[in-house]
Amino acid sequence: MRMYDIINKKKHGEHFTKEEIQFWVEGYNRGQIPDYQVSALLMAICFQGMNEEETLALTLAMRDSGEVLDLSKITGIKVDKHSTGGVGDKTSLVLTPMIAALGIPVAKMSGRGLGHTGGTIDKLECFPGFTTELSEAQFYENVNQIKMAIMSQTANLAPADQKLYALRDVTATVDQISLIAASIMSKKLAANADAIVLDVKTGNGAFMKSEEDAFALAREMVRIGQNAGKQISAVITDMDQPLGAAVGNSLEVKEAILALNGLGPKDFMEVVYGLGTELVLAAGKAEHPEAAKELLRGTIQSKSALHKFAEFVKAQGGNMDLVYQPELLPVGRIQLQVLNTEVGYVSRILAEEIGLASLVLGGGRITKESKIDLSVGVLLNKKRGDRVQPGETLATVFANDMEKAKEAYGRVVRAYQFQDEPMVEIPMIKGIVR
Amino acid sequence: MRMYDIINKKKHGEHFTKEEIQFWVEGYNRGQIPDYQVSALLMAICFQGMNEEETLALTLAMRDSGEVLDLSKITGIKVDKHSTGGVGDKTSLVLTPMIAALGIPVAKMSGRGLGHTGGTIDKLECFPGFTTELSEAQFYENVNQIKMAIMSQTANLAPADQKLYALRDVTATVDQISLIAASIMSKKLAANADAIVLDVKTGNGAFMKSEEDAFALAREMVRIGQNAGKQISAVITDMDQPLGAAVGNSLEVKEAILALNGLGPKDFMEVVYGLGTELVLAAGKAEHPEAAKELLRGTIQSKSALHKFAEFVKAQGGNMDLVYQPELLPVGRIQLQVLNTEVGYVSRILAEEIGLASLVLGGGRITKESKIDLSVGVLLNKKRGDRVQPGETLATVFANDMEKAKEAYGRVVRAYQFQDEPMVEIPMIKGIVR
Repeated sequence: MRMYDIINKKKHGEHFTKEEIQFWVEGYNRGQIPDYQVSALLMAICFQGMNEEETLALTLAMRDSGEVLDLSKITGIKVDKHSTGGVGDKTSLVLTPMIAALGIPVAKMSGRGLGHTGGTIDKLECFPGFTTELSEAQFYENVNQIKMAIMSQTANLAPADQKLYALRDVTATVDQISLIAASIMSKKLAANADAIVLDVKTGNGAFMKSEEDAFALAREMVRIGQNAGKQISAVITDMDQPLGAAVGNSLEVKEAILALNGLGPKDFMEVVYGLGTELVLAAGKAEHPEAAKELLRGTIQSKSALHKFAEFVKAQGGNMDLVYQPELLPVGRIQLQVLNTEVGYVSRILAEEIGLASLVLGGGRITKESKIDLSVGVLLNKKRGDRVQPGETLATVFANDMEKAKEAYGRVVRAYQFQDEPMVEIPMIKGIVR
Repeated sequence: MRMYDIINKKKHGEHFTKEEIQFWVEGYNRGQIPDYQVSALLMAICFQGMNEEETLALTLAMRDSGEVLDLSKITGIKVDKHSTGGVGDKTSLVLTPMIAALGIPVAKMSGRGLGHTGGTIDKLECFPGFTTELSEAQFYENVNQIKMAIMSQTANLAPADQKLYALRDVTATVDQISLIAASIMSKKLAANADAIVLDVKTGNGAFMKSEEDAFALAREMVRIGQNAGKQISAVITDMDQPLGAAVGNSLEVKEAILALNGLGPKDFMEVVYGLGTELVLAAGKAEHPEAAKELLRGTIQSKSALHKFAEFVKAQGGNMDLVYQPELLPVGRIQLQVLNTEVGYVSRILAEEIGLASLVLGGGRITKESKIDLSVGVLLNKKRGDRVQPGETLATVFANDMEKAKEAYGRVVRAYQFQDEPMVEIPMIKGIVR
């Protein structure tokens, strides 16, 4: 087999065999095939696509390039949840303890975020002492004991995907749906939970701007998961405005704690319950969606999810007192209120602009080496559909630097759009792919 | 300007500005843009193409990446001829002295061949002592004195093209017509003759298999040349069977000498006269094609072209006696006759198979480092349209190794195709693009 022929085959729109895909993925991962041949192949894939068998073979080849976790030491049906990423997405912080409180084991691998805000790990580091540097033994032990643990993704999970992603990132070959699906699923399959629920975001603040693309990606990922023998479903959710009110690390943790106390924003809870229902059904804890939702509601009403969260924070070395005293979490010294001048209704809040506001404040990473300021961010006092009067506060910018605060302020102003008439409520859940 | 945006632009089918093309060609040539970004861009170009302005800008950027020859020291209208390459193509050996004999200066840069047989330089090295390592001063001096000289292509002629070609060669991005046109024309424009005639081959033994592609390539190259201010035309010629009877270095030199003595094969001479007519017209030595052809015929009848060739061989250090005693040129020790078993007419001789036969005999280069055996090759005793009887010799294999001779024999047998009915003669010249 020669890499030249592999490139040429895809260039002419032919399909790869499993062996051909293994050849180039393994060859690239081992450094035997050079970057310049793989980037030409990736560009050819962007034009010619891959069919279901090819996408599955690519996913499995990337999964098998590194370690596949052995979760057999954890009892029960292990579940995992993945989001394609959006602005203000603190779903995992709330949903994971709710699921764990129902006795369903959640063994989660998580990465640090590269983008508008930090990832789940960054957010959890708001609790002094909290660590995700667990040994595998400790990780399994924690899941068995308290039903949840979050570990930082080891370097050896699907290394071929990491290498390919880095190459796609600099060669304009990121946005091909089969490549995206294979990349996400290779890591999920290596993390090896029994049941997986995917949150595929759509809208101006998501990677998939159109619902059509989001559904296509969801279908590809669900098909890969099913072909790999997993229980899997995908929920397509709205990201045309930020999720909830808080954007920025400590602000989001506070909002998550409010949610665990039954005070979560409506749009955010709609997503939490939508994803949670799928997880509960997949774990076999309920027969139908309404029963699953009922169980989930119970974990909030009884505060069992809140206490589970505190237990989890403590088990990974964090100061759990803050879970009960969220007012002690760090907040930016400078707080600027964005005042409204319009009469009408908020029609849209450009999620990307709010995300960029958080980024310029120092709340997100521009490069892997960036240090995050956990205390900054934006709080949205008004959301889509809200009626507004001149003089009301639309949003609040939390900052530690006046120049950055002003820049973020401008972005927040640009993010808000208005209309005269009241608007029909837009559902947060666009559909489910099973 | 960022290379990422350049790749993305072409991926989405947009057109480059001149400045964008200069940016990536110069950046790549200087080593500032990595191979893997350029190969992704080249693949995107294969799918999206380039328009006339882009192709011209690419050609000029590659030309300007190195030296552009200053031929002002040569008097008269300097002409150059280029072939896209085929099997048995010894046209330059015959046409160049014919043109020079008419007083038209031919200043030719030539490369060593990579393929079925050697290039023009390899063939000329059949004359002991012959060298193409001339100083520029000597080169100009020779052209002024005897109206012809051939110099090996310096490393600094369109170096960006050389680098890009090497990358295209390993990333399956060679066969895009605008890239091919720009590559050929960047070197021709750097060699800087006043008038250029292109021999664009078409057929199974050519790079352009279809006439349609050959005409498209011809049109692109002629347009580039005209936009760059050159007198230029392209002749599309048949390469569906090898040109002439001889394939292999010393065999081809012998055939060239026969041709200069008025004994050239019909198909070969048709191409020589076709290209020669364009060169004579371009140099302003004749008013119309028939007059040009008459002048060319005169150089054969008077033997002035033969003597010019001898003069040229001597001027570059070669033993000119061999021009008058071609039987002394080296030939392979082993000669295998390929005998015919069919009754009918030769309908086709797959040029590529004959070329590969020459290659396995050692007559061509597989890598740049290969040493060529000048004495081996294949002589075609029967050509397309010839009537054949069982027991007649179809072709003769010249070799120095029995195993290789047998392999070549098999290829020659596979190359011949027959039909029962006599066939209509196929014209060698398919058309001219001016």
